[in-house]
Amino acid sequence: MQIALVGIGKIALDQHVPSIAASPDWELAATVSRHGTVDGVEAFTDFDAMLAARPDIRVVSLCMPPVPRYDYAAKAIRAARHVMLEKPPGATLSECHALADMAAAQRVSLYATWHSRSADKVQAAKAWLAGKTLRKFTVTWKEDVRRWHPGQEWIWEPGGMGVFDPGINALSIVTEILADPIHVTSALLEVPENRQAPIAAKMAFHHPTAEVAMEFDWRQEGDQTWSIEAECDEGTLALHDGGARMLVDGAETGDETSAALSGEYPRLYARMSELVRAGTSDVDLAPMRHVADAFTLGRRELVAPFTE
Amino acid sequence: MQIALVGIGKIALDQHVPSIAASPDWELAATVSRHGTVDGVEAFTDFDAMLAARPDIRVVSLCMPPVPRYDYAAKAIRAARHVMLEKPPGATLSECHALADMAAAQRVSLYATWHSRSADKVQAAKAWLAGKTLRKFTVTWKEDVRRWHPGQEWIWEPGGMGVFDPGINALSIVTEILADPIHVTSALLEVPENRQAPIAAKMAFHHPTAEVAMEFDWRQEGDQTWSIEAECDEGTLALHDGGARMLVDGAETGDETSAALSGEYPRLYARMSELVRAGTSDVDLAPMRHVADAFTLGRRELVAPFTE
Repeated sequence: MQIALVGIGKIALDQHVPSIAASPDWELAATVSRHGTVDGVEAFTDFDAMLAARPDIRVVSLCMPPVPRYDYAAKAIRAARHVMLEKPPGATLSECHALADMAAAQRVSLYATWHSRSADKVQAAKAWLAGKTLRKFTVTWKEDVRRWHPGQEWIWEPGGMGVFDPGINALSIVTEILADPIHVTSALLEVPENRQAPIAAKMAFHHPTAEVAMEFDWRQEGDQTWSIEAECDEGTLALHDGGARMLVDGAETGDETSAALSGEYPRLYARMSELVRAGTSDVDLAPMRHVADAFTLGRRELVAPFTE
Repeated sequence: MQIALVGIGKIALDQHVPSIAASPDWELAATVSRHGTVDGVEAFTDFDAMLAARPDIRVVSLCMPPVPRYDYAAKAIRAARHVMLEKPPGATLSECHALADMAAAQRVSLYATWHSRSADKVQAAKAWLAGKTLRKFTVTWKEDVRRWHPGQEWIWEPGGMGVFDPGINALSIVTEILADPIHVTSALLEVPENRQAPIAAKMAFHHPTAEVAMEFDWRQEGDQTWSIEAECDEGTLALHDGGARMLVDGAETGDETSAALSGEYPRLYARMSELVRAGTSDVDLAPMRHVADAFTLGRRELVAPFTE
């Protein structure tokens, strides 16, 4: 199937382009971007022009920042194209609900992707946790914003979500592997006094049997931490490196992911192909709902200014 | 049907108690509150004790502030009681989703009430707008917080929502009367420098055909304003006094609400009675989703400190 990629920035070039190139299902047929292009692929700078010129392209994948994404997605759906959304699927929950309703009415597939859910050990972790009694659940997501988001001013603006931009990846894994629902009961958001979005967040969540705590921080230099630890009556699980590694009671689990497909983004594109073939959508807003809840319920504390 | 009222504060005494007393459907059988009581009604200070002592009371109505509400609602649902929630239905969207799932599993009715949706002219406004082409839609909700929320410290705390506590009433009417979905595209939240929650908010929303703007302000002295104006190709509608009055092209519409039932809270209790009889729930989180979206996407500006 032919696909158009919209928003040719870091994530598109690092992940989307190679994943599409490696897939037997997809052919990158066009790009839309003010500045970015991909060698050998027809490049548009205007989205409407692409939709009009290439009615043969039935699927678009949107990789621009969340705030402008709704307008592109709505245009694509109105033009009867299937749509794949980078995370988070939009700047607001309400716009995502509206897009899901539009996609259903137009009978096109809408896929709100959560790439971290496709990390190598996420399904194994979910299977291990099933049926066990959880007592303590700790999420630690600490990275250096200067290293991972150089020059991305939009992440500090309203709608950019600040440290919840990586933190929502943790939440997407958590909401995939936990069988029971959770909800935030307290949140402390540390906001640099010269910025709108938090640079760090500490949260406690309600869970039926466990104490659940999460800490996101963008000020981590040196070693980077993307870890989830689950203490159960039956043993302890740890996911490290954003879901790429899994330990049970301290012992590394082997690489059972012998499936042909490895890597987060190749799995997303395989899933999009399934959704289009099946004529269905996948729009799970739970990770984003937790972020919105933390913003609504969070106590804000001003901290030292941040300059890149 | 016997009902227990939990959280005997201002809203319970002003609205819930008289509405229950006036209804042929309901009998106030117990109250639960640390301090408040109602003459002639069995008073408990502990919720668990009430649930254990009065298995004959099948329905509870929860009027405490949103932050503690989840724990009471979850206990009531686990004890197979039907539950009615004051607005907003909780402190987070995720906890409301969890309650809705619990209620479905326990086969009890859960009703997330929005009292302003039951204001006299809301249904007439919805009917008038149906099929018309909306061009401009303006919501102005300006009141004096000192007059309406004396001593309510919780409204300024995280989860109290600040000016969105009345503003969500406007949003509950808007999401009832508009046929098309809206979503916030920009929000300015004015937060007193000694408080956590906004004292004022200005918002713009996306709508398929109309320019939509809302302004909430808690610093309004003198005349109070709770108005919605809708300019359509076919004419102009205005709702005033929180939905109690309606004007079409400047002319006051007559009082067609000749139904036996008048007033917001009597209608809520009549609806709860219907839900319990029908074995169904009514949990529409759209108004709360817009608030969470405004908190997530909003730009915060510190303003003069507020002291009561």
